[in-house]
Amino acid sequence: MPSRTPIEYRDASPKVRAVFDDIKRTRQVEDVNNFWKYLAHDPVTLKRTWDSVKQVMAPGALDVLTKEMVYLAVSVTNGCGYCIASHGAAARKAGMTEAMFGDLMAVVGMANETNRLANGYRVPIDAAFDR
Amino acid sequence: MPSRTPIEYRDASPKVRAVFDDIKRTRQVEDVNNFWKYLAHDPVTLKRTWDSVKQVMAPGALDVLTKEMVYLAVSVTNGCGYCIASHGAAARKAGMTEAMFGDLMAVVGMANETNRLANGYRVPIDAAFDR
Amino acid sequence: MPSRTPIEYRDASPKVRAVFDDIKRTRQVEDVNNFWKYLAHDPVTLKRTWDSVKQVMAPGALDVLTKEMVYLAVSVTNGCGYCIASHGAAARKAGMTEAMFGDLMAVVGMANETNRLANGYRVPIDAAFDR
Amino acid sequence: MPSRTPIEYRDASPKVRAVFDDIKRTRQVEDVNNFWKYLAHDPVTLKRTWDSVKQVMAPGALDVLTKEMVYLAVSVTNGCGYCIASHGAAARKAGMTEAMFGDLMAVVGMANETNRLANGYRVPIDAAFDR
Amino acid sequence: MPSRTPIEYRDASPKVRAVFDDIKRTRQVEDVNNFWKYLAHDPVTLKRTWDSVKQVMAPGALDVLTKEMVYLAVSVTNGCGYCIASHGAAARKAGMTEAMFGDLMAVVGMANETNRLANGYRVPIDAAFDR
Amino acid sequence: MPSRTPIEYRDASPKVRAVFDDIKRTRQVEDVNNFWKYLAHDPVTLKRTWDSVKQVMAPGALDVLTKEMVYLAVSVTNGCGYCIASHGAAARKAGMTEAMFGDLMAVVGMANETNRLANGYRVPIDAAFDR
Repeated sequence: MPSRTPIEYRDASPKVRAVFDDIKRTRQVEDVNNFWKYLAHDPVTLKRTWDSVKQVMAPGALDVLTKEMVYLAVSVTNGCGYCIASHGAAARKAGMTEAMFGDLMAVVGMANETNRLANGYRVPIDAAFDR
Repeated sequence: MPSRTPIEYRDASPKVRAVFDDIKRTRQVEDVNNFWKYLAHDPVTLKRTWDSVKQVMAPGALDVLTKEMVYLAVSVTNGCGYCIASHGAAARKAGMTEAMFGDLMAVVGMANETNRLANGYRVPIDAAFDR
Repeated sequence: MPSRTPIEYRDASPKVRAVFDDIKRTRQVEDVNNFWKYLAHDPVTLKRTWDSVKQVMAPGALDVLTKEMVYLAVSVTNGCGYCIASHGAAARKAGMTEAMFGDLMAVVGMANETNRLANGYRVPIDAAFDR
Repeated sequence: MPSRTPIEYRDASPKVRAVFDDIKRTRQVEDVNNFWKYLAHDPVTLKRTWDSVKQVMAPGALDVLTKEMVYLAVSVTNGCGYCIASHGAAARKAGMTEAMFGDLMAVVGMANETNRLANGYRVPIDAAFDR
Repeated sequence: MPSRTPIEYRDASPKVRAVFDDIKRTRQVEDVNNFWKYLAHDPVTLKRTWDSVKQVMAPGALDVLTKEMVYLAVSVTNGCGYCIASHGAAARKAGMTEAMFGDLMAVVGMANETNRLANGYRVPIDAAFDR
Repeated sequence: MPSRTPIEYRDASPKVRAVFDDIKRTRQVEDVNNFWKYLAHDPVTLKRTWDSVKQVMAPGALDVLTKEMVYLAVSVTNGCGYCIASHGAAARKAGMTEAMFGDLMAVVGMANETNRLANGYRVPIDAAFDR
């Protein structure tokens, strides 16, 4: 089952190596994370995903720290263990303090709670929100 | 089925009115949203939820705008129609521009995609993330 | 697009009518809900689903009211609008008071919140829970 | 990364110890679960969450056993490993027999199935449910 | 709130028109769906999303019909009303019969049920699956 | 906690053995997976679930390979670790190549992304999809 093992740089095809090189250059890291080493089993998806992540996570109308915290909030909501670990690390690297992490988790928890209260009470959307 | 209609201020008990008054004062609004008018069927949950939301959404290590955008990101991930409408409005009121909204949605979409790629490829957590 | 319209009793095949008859007899109702009228486009799934629901929702180690409230809790968590409406009605028919509904929503909301706090803080399972 | 280790009682601040003491007293236990030891990194969220859980899970219109089973049903639906383990233990402590657990899982499974059938067949809400 | 209205071709910028033109040419349609008209508020996300969808949904190791049915299965699981409607239509256009739709829904329902049974019973992964 | 250990054939009741025998015969395997050994704690749910899975996963309007890939797509979307492992193995056994797996994951990822874009932009359903 080939997709169950990571593809290391030394074993990668030129196409995969080109993506790995761009990740390492862009993020200033020695090696790429497991996510990319497993995705390398599908070089087309690897390249498209990296190109998209690179574009989406670059500073724009929102700064990198805010983007990483939003990524983490989504990953926590979905319960993706790998993503919580990797984007938790990325958010901290981008400047998230433990106090900010605490605030972030409090908001994520509260949103998940009130989402269900709104569902359960079948609350209709206020006309003001549709103007 | 009493919980299927909103409780307006004029029909509310003193306990519910006290919460409505605090919401209006804190948020500087003329009337409370439907969410609170439906939750008013359970005054204990109404009070606890408002007290929690008030504490969690106050400026802290994260500012109000960031908190509202995270709330929106979670609501979009869960597909809660009411919450997307109400917290979209709240985030805009707190200063979210359309460019920031665009960036936010791009990150939310990308995170939901890569969360599933990590699941599907069964990617193990890098040792570096657990240090 | 045939599956976009309900199949009424008068237009149903004998196989579908047999299931409709059993639903009406078991639940003591005049007509079946839309759920069954749409599912009738696939008579095999209609029969299997009804047979399963009938078995699962019958009184057993848990009574009917508890089962309907659990069904509602799941539907609220998943944000299924139809299911929230139909199982909210079914739970009330089985004896759920508004006070019980309020308690139920409070627990559902809290569970959805703490589920994410446990995810986000990456809490390891206590040894005691695995004994 | 401080939030990646539990905070034990002996290392806790007075504010955290006060919450731990109340948990131990209320639940009649020797030590608190990992959930609280990790949440202790944010004493404000720790206190608010415990106060809310204590209020929500106390006997009311629903008894403790029903509440714990609903909590478990939500956790299973969300796939929260920690919460399934901890609330599975809590429900059993509150009196859930293996037969009741079996019934609970059967309902949770069925609800998750029919939620998607209702979504997929795009079933409109029956007028009777909105009366 | 500009993002709450669709952007029609006649009002679109050249950058947006170029994407709309490519969608119409690729799919052989007169007009693009609402999804693209709303996404047009963020031309960068519009272009990236269309380029990705175009690449991912083209025939490859899987044919177009299978891809559309998988898309529909995911949308039904997530409860995305818009996506269920649009990809239901796309799958039918690609050749999905009502019998195939019935089979698809049966599998989606069953998978959502057994996913929760596996969660609830805390079933450990068989060694054979990791080989 | 009895439900925390698998029930092996040698320890199983006649009712459970009959289901295990049918699984082994139908799937031509030496032993059943852990899923069935844990579900065996509730013989009624074991039998109903197996009968349903056997019916649903048999070749029909969709072939076995397509059904297994849809099952996997749902499991990846829900983040069910056990189900991803077991149905990943089942899909490969039914003929899914690594190239097909790559395509499948690309579609699953894209659908999860666009589901949230549709939610966030609050895209109304096109009239054409309701005809």
